[in-house]
Amino acid sequence: MLAGGIGGARFLRGLKSVLGSGEGTDGSDPEITVIGNTGDDITLFGLKICPDLDTVMYTLGGGINEEQGWGRAEETFSVRSELAAYGMQPQWFGLGDRDVATHIVRTQMLSAGYPLSAVTEALCDRWRPGVRLIPMTDERVETHVVVCDDEGRRAIHFQEWWVRHRAALPAEAILPVGVEKATPAPGVLEAIEAADFVLFPPSNPVVSVGTILAVPGIRDAVAAKTVVGVSPIIGDAPVRGMADACLSAIGVETSARAVAEHYGAELLDGWLVDDADAGTRVEGIDVRSRPLYMSDPAATEAIARAAVDLALELKERA
Amino acid sequence: MLAGGIGGARFLRGLKSVLGSGEGTDGSDPEITVIGNTGDDITLFGLKICPDLDTVMYTLGGGINEEQGWGRAEETFSVRSELAAYGMQPQWFGLGDRDVATHIVRTQMLSAGYPLSAVTEALCDRWRPGVRLIPMTDERVETHVVVCDDEGRRAIHFQEWWVRHRAALPAEAILPVGVEKATPAPGVLEAIEAADFVLFPPSNPVVSVGTILAVPGIRDAVAAKTVVGVSPIIGDAPVRGMADACLSAIGVETSARAVAEHYGAELLDGWLVDDADAGTRVEGIDVRSRPLYMSDPAATEAIARAAVDLALELKERA
Repeated sequence: MLAGGIGGARFLRGLKSVLGSGEGTDGSDPEITVIGNTGDDITLFGLKICPDLDTVMYTLGGGINEEQGWGRAEETFSVRSELAAYGMQPQWFGLGDRDVATHIVRTQMLSAGYPLSAVTEALCDRWRPGVRLIPMTDERVETHVVVCDDEGRRAIHFQEWWVRHRAALPAEAILPVGVEKATPAPGVLEAIEAADFVLFPPSNPVVSVGTILAVPGIRDAVAAKTVVGVSPIIGDAPVRGMADACLSAIGVETSARAVAEHYGAELLDGWLVDDADAGTRVEGIDVRSRPLYMSDPAATEAIARAAVDLALELKERA
Repeated sequence: MLAGGIGGARFLRGLKSVLGSGEGTDGSDPEITVIGNTGDDITLFGLKICPDLDTVMYTLGGGINEEQGWGRAEETFSVRSELAAYGMQPQWFGLGDRDVATHIVRTQMLSAGYPLSAVTEALCDRWRPGVRLIPMTDERVETHVVVCDDEGRRAIHFQEWWVRHRAALPAEAILPVGVEKATPAPGVLEAIEAADFVLFPPSNPVVSVGTILAVPGIRDAVAAKTVVGVSPIIGDAPVRGMADACLSAIGVETSARAVAEHYGAELLDGWLVDDADAGTRVEGIDVRSRPLYMSDPAATEAIARAAVDLALELKERA
């Protein structure tokens, strides 16, 4: 699976309860490998922060703030309030104390020379997410957003646009800086090649799944497999988050159909849309409709099961 | 004033209430410059920690944990418990969340190229300690302690000896590593030269005041001034802390007289001892006795006043 943050992490909980119950093609519990987006990564206060990897790790490891969907449960904010008291900028990033410890461990290991993939594996030794989590690349890729307002046209970090401006500043372009020179982290291409099928959860198709696919080599490896995606758009709105602002920036309509067309038939084999979008047709892609709101664990598991079933069916047919 | 941590910071509160009330030699409120010990500094989890500078800053700035004497008031410990959950070592250092923010700011400024003296000044912009606080040096000096136990003879960081072992492992030597190549931070020698007099608070004479004096140039500059010290030893025990363990390591008896002799008459002009040590005589040093327990603000102020009065008297006589 390719995964962004909240949507990917929640979908993974459903997928684990489907696949963990012995529905792998060989009858045993299959391994789930998650290729995580790192385009949202940011270095703040000298700390390397990987929001999407952490959201997956915390969600599957039982440490997530459930209401919020990101950050740690039972969090405190002493570090943040003290940094503000020192006048440190930026102050718009929600940095919790428990979360800070994760970033300290990561930053220390990175400066000791370990690649991000090894660091992620070490952090997962504690969290035991029950999946193999690999960052898309060990190299630095940072999504920047070109905005234009009273202060003029400029590129700002994705997090500044997303968190500080809540994606309300119109984006003229979304640039995954450094992606064209990045290489997939060790194990990424091997995992895709060895996979029975690849799933796209209802993560942001531009800044999450799109960024992962932009790492040279990953799109081609994925395209060679049976791929089923779950639409992050229901009706004409994102299920959650502000994916519409990202789609507008790249000139794609906010609809389940347009997102499938954007991924393209050379990549996607199957596409799950919500019943609200029943009747959606995309040339070359097998579209099925069902309820897509991940409203509780049972609903999420049913969506994951539908994605797995469709993937197995399409793989059988291929 | 040369200062270590808790003893120096508490004495400074008394000194501020004496000198802040207009008793400077020119009739106006004089400036107090504090040369802080940095030999206790340690880098943990990638964070540069300066325990003595922070104790002075927090104590005078109103942020100290009063009962403990170090660390922040109303502290939380989320980062520490999370680092432990990740299995990070060491776990014996009492790293609070509020305190972590200070270390993050310091570490960021240092890695941006600012010297520790400039960083300390920036941190004091927030705390407004009412004194000018300068680290003894901008270079790295780290006090190591040679110990010998079942694990063999080895040098450990002062903090490991002090905090983890509570100075209970006999010290064979105390080594301020790097001090011989260190240079005083900008402003240190100038402040000493411009001073009306120099005070040694009841800080540890070995690992606090002793380390500052070991920075080449500082001892000579201090020796040229009128110097009055306050004994950190009352009877045959340290007022607080474990100075006796440090004195033993350098072969000095734990007594007010022995500490004065260790500083030496070429450095010290006056020496305040507790009434319990009345009658102490040291060749070439004017010894006075009075109550030396800093039991409350009034008692501390009275001790500071006695030190200032003795310094002014000796300076007059010189």
